[in-house]
Amino acid sequence: MATNTNTVADHHAPAITQILAEFVATHPSKGWSDAVEHEAHRTFLNWLGCAIGASDHAAARAALSAVHMLQPAPQASIAGRSERVDMASAALIHGITSHTFDFDDTHLRTIIHPAGPVASALLPLAEHLGASGRAVIDALVLGIDVACRLGNTVYPEHYDRGWHITGTTGMLGSAAACARLLQLNTQQTAMALGIAASQPIGLREQFGTMTKPFHPGGAARAGLMSALMAKHGFTASGKALEAPRGWAQVVSTKYDWNEVTDELGKRFEISSNTYKPFACGIVIHPSIDACVQLRDQGVKAEDVERIELRVHSLVLELTGKKEPTDGLQGKFSVYHGCAAGLIFGRAAEEEFDDHIVNREDVVTLRRKVHATVDNNIREESTDLTAFLKDGRKIHVFVEHAIGSVQRPMTDAALEAKFHGMSDAVIGADKTNALLQACWGLGQAANVQALVALTKA
Amino acid sequence: MATNTNTVADHHAPAITQILAEFVATHPSKGWSDAVEHEAHRTFLNWLGCAIGASDHAAARAALSAVHMLQPAPQASIAGRSERVDMASAALIHGITSHTFDFDDTHLRTIIHPAGPVASALLPLAEHLGASGRAVIDALVLGIDVACRLGNTVYPEHYDRGWHITGTTGMLGSAAACARLLQLNTQQTAMALGIAASQPIGLREQFGTMTKPFHPGGAARAGLMSALMAKHGFTASGKALEAPRGWAQVVSTKYDWNEVTDELGKRFEISSNTYKPFACGIVIHPSIDACVQLRDQGVKAEDVERIELRVHSLVLELTGKKEPTDGLQGKFSVYHGCAAGLIFGRAAEEEFDDHIVNREDVVTLRRKVHATVDNNIREESTDLTAFLKDGRKIHVFVEHAIGSVQRPMTDAALEAKFHGMSDAVIGADKTNALLQACWGLGQAANVQALVALTKA
Repeated sequence: MATNTNTVADHHAPAITQILAEFVATHPSKGWSDAVEHEAHRTFLNWLGCAIGASDHAAARAALSAVHMLQPAPQASIAGRSERVDMASAALIHGITSHTFDFDDTHLRTIIHPAGPVASALLPLAEHLGASGRAVIDALVLGIDVACRLGNTVYPEHYDRGWHITGTTGMLGSAAACARLLQLNTQQTAMALGIAASQPIGLREQFGTMTKPFHPGGAARAGLMSALMAKHGFTASGKALEAPRGWAQVVSTKYDWNEVTDELGKRFEISSNTYKPFACGIVIHPSIDACVQLRDQGVKAEDVERIELRVHSLVLELTGKKEPTDGLQGKFSVYHGCAAGLIFGRAAEEEFDDHIVNREDVVTLRRKVHATVDNNIREESTDLTAFLKDGRKIHVFVEHAIGSVQRPMTDAALEAKFHGMSDAVIGADKTNALLQACWGLGQAANVQALVALTKA
Repeated sequence: MATNTNTVADHHAPAITQILAEFVATHPSKGWSDAVEHEAHRTFLNWLGCAIGASDHAAARAALSAVHMLQPAPQASIAGRSERVDMASAALIHGITSHTFDFDDTHLRTIIHPAGPVASALLPLAEHLGASGRAVIDALVLGIDVACRLGNTVYPEHYDRGWHITGTTGMLGSAAACARLLQLNTQQTAMALGIAASQPIGLREQFGTMTKPFHPGGAARAGLMSALMAKHGFTASGKALEAPRGWAQVVSTKYDWNEVTDELGKRFEISSNTYKPFACGIVIHPSIDACVQLRDQGVKAEDVERIELRVHSLVLELTGKKEPTDGLQGKFSVYHGCAAGLIFGRAAEEEFDDHIVNREDVVTLRRKVHATVDNNIREESTDLTAFLKDGRKIHVFVEHAIGSVQRPMTDAALEAKFHGMSDAVIGADKTNALLQACWGLGQAANVQALVALTKA
């Protein structure tokens, strides 16, 4: 890995702004495998479900109140809501809603949540333009490739320094995607990337506040506006990404240019995108998964005498809260996660509602869960033994949790997750129709039919 | 100076987000000297002239074309133009226009151009709200204090790394100013600063492109929206500026918290704001000034046989272009600067028009200027000797150029500069009325009368 830490090497930086611009502007439509094409649809579907699910969250309402002070034109819809706003504001709101539950997608190598900034800008722009679903899928794959490749370039130093990498690469993914949808040429696309490069958004200090989901929202908006400005002739440096005082070298001391150029147009980063089955930190996913498996074997909460967990030390460090008192604390409790998994067979956003965390049967069961650290168990694994009242003992070992690259969520599981977020907002029937529209997006002549189904 | 370079010291960071929020929310109206009050009016006036002057520049037109794609509501005016857009877009455009000529103000200690991000957000918001001039001046002083104090905190490491400090502190100045104008309380103001902290805008690589003036524009917009979001309950970290993964420590390895707290509310950074008399890089200002002084002594271009300049090495390094062929190159030519100073008695934006740079008398005179490096001469000085055709020899030594802290531009000179930018756009009569409105802003019951005079 060529990690440059001094400016001498800078002169040898490849022209990555230009290289990425040409790639985005000229790569053929659907110029990838069926697997990549399918993953793009999974990414879009998962993003949309999250956006609908949090569409009436306090963060969305507060941001929308600010947007309404601008008296926006009714250009674009907001998934899960009835009002319309200008397309840039719709990008902002979608970025916020899709990340509010921390339930969206993850590019595990960089911890980027790539759909947030990219899809959030694309859908409102496509709706306003009356673009085809094909054009949206093309732009989504290319935009996510740009964001994640640039993330690979500066990760981990950039993230370790305190940047929330989703918003500090996301404006580049959004700019690339919107440039593609607007059919900008290579030179205009380079300008769009250049304008966006000046606008990294996000500090990790904001985690736990509404400004965390603001980061993908702000990045979505910034990328969209950068593309619109480039379309009208606004100029930026043509070396904005790679120059000594350009994006990579200003926001990171590590910049491995090969991450941009290696197999560009052949390997697509969206292939390694993953989706969270559970609405909480990834370290407790294996334990929840083990409890869901227990339930699948017919075990009920009232059968349980005691559950013993052996886990990596990080699990208890990050999620060792024994007596959570509200939903947010529940997300940091492996004990609550296990109780939810066994009682409900899932741990979506509603299983982290305050009233669920305090429900008597949930509290009773979580107190029967005992976790000990065993560093022979890896971070992504868990070792569970359930002792039942009838004397049986059931052992479940999870090497990789559901939702990992090794055990991806099935399409059916993604649909179930979507229903869990969407049914209460737009109803189950409309949700079914919307799911069909998502799977068929690449063939849709116009995105507006899909968008119409997202309205509350 | 307490420069912290490791995280051990972080635990001792004072609560500067909270401290600044309380200062902005509670400092008394006009709680400063008459000198500060007058400097605020000079800052506003100089900013407005620059904004009007560049109101039909290609950068403004390109950005406006993008904004018009959002079909903005006609909430606020754009100085020098006839159309109205939403107030956030007006903030963006004003930030762009006021910085396009590189002719705006400079806080010399940090090279921040503070009015761009702050006044550009304030005026559209004030127009929309129908706020008083008093409230605008109060917010301007406080917003600039926040931006420049935070600039002092991280300068120079932050700037050396490649950040364009005007846009990376400006969103905080804009957020503070807009929070004040919106009468947010301390807690809401802290949230506004927190939301803004995630949005530093600007890379030095963009210098020479339209994205340079985009930086104060984007910062103005970001700060305004942060304040609107905070007003409606959007949350951010209450330690977003000082936490280990907060703004200062993510964007800089140097952070001197005392710069925020020392004499806060007693010393105001706007006091050391300066205004450029010449529309070019500051290193050739002393030489232009010397030629203007020569002209004031009655010397005409046709009298000159030869001019000898002795200057610091930096002057020729940065502005040594002997035969500039267009206006932009003219800005990097001390020879053209001298010719303009002697022929026109000024070097405003129009003296850097392409046709002036190529005019025969200008070319003839600049070829008579000979510059040599003498490092006994300081950067801010010049030593000029003019040899005239009649045998006379005139010596002019400039220690500090006009426009420096030591020799500030007079109010009359600021007015002349304003006329030079504004007369061609809105006419001399309206410009006179507008200048009166600027000087009287602190007493105006409503800013809308002043705004009406800025329309083309």
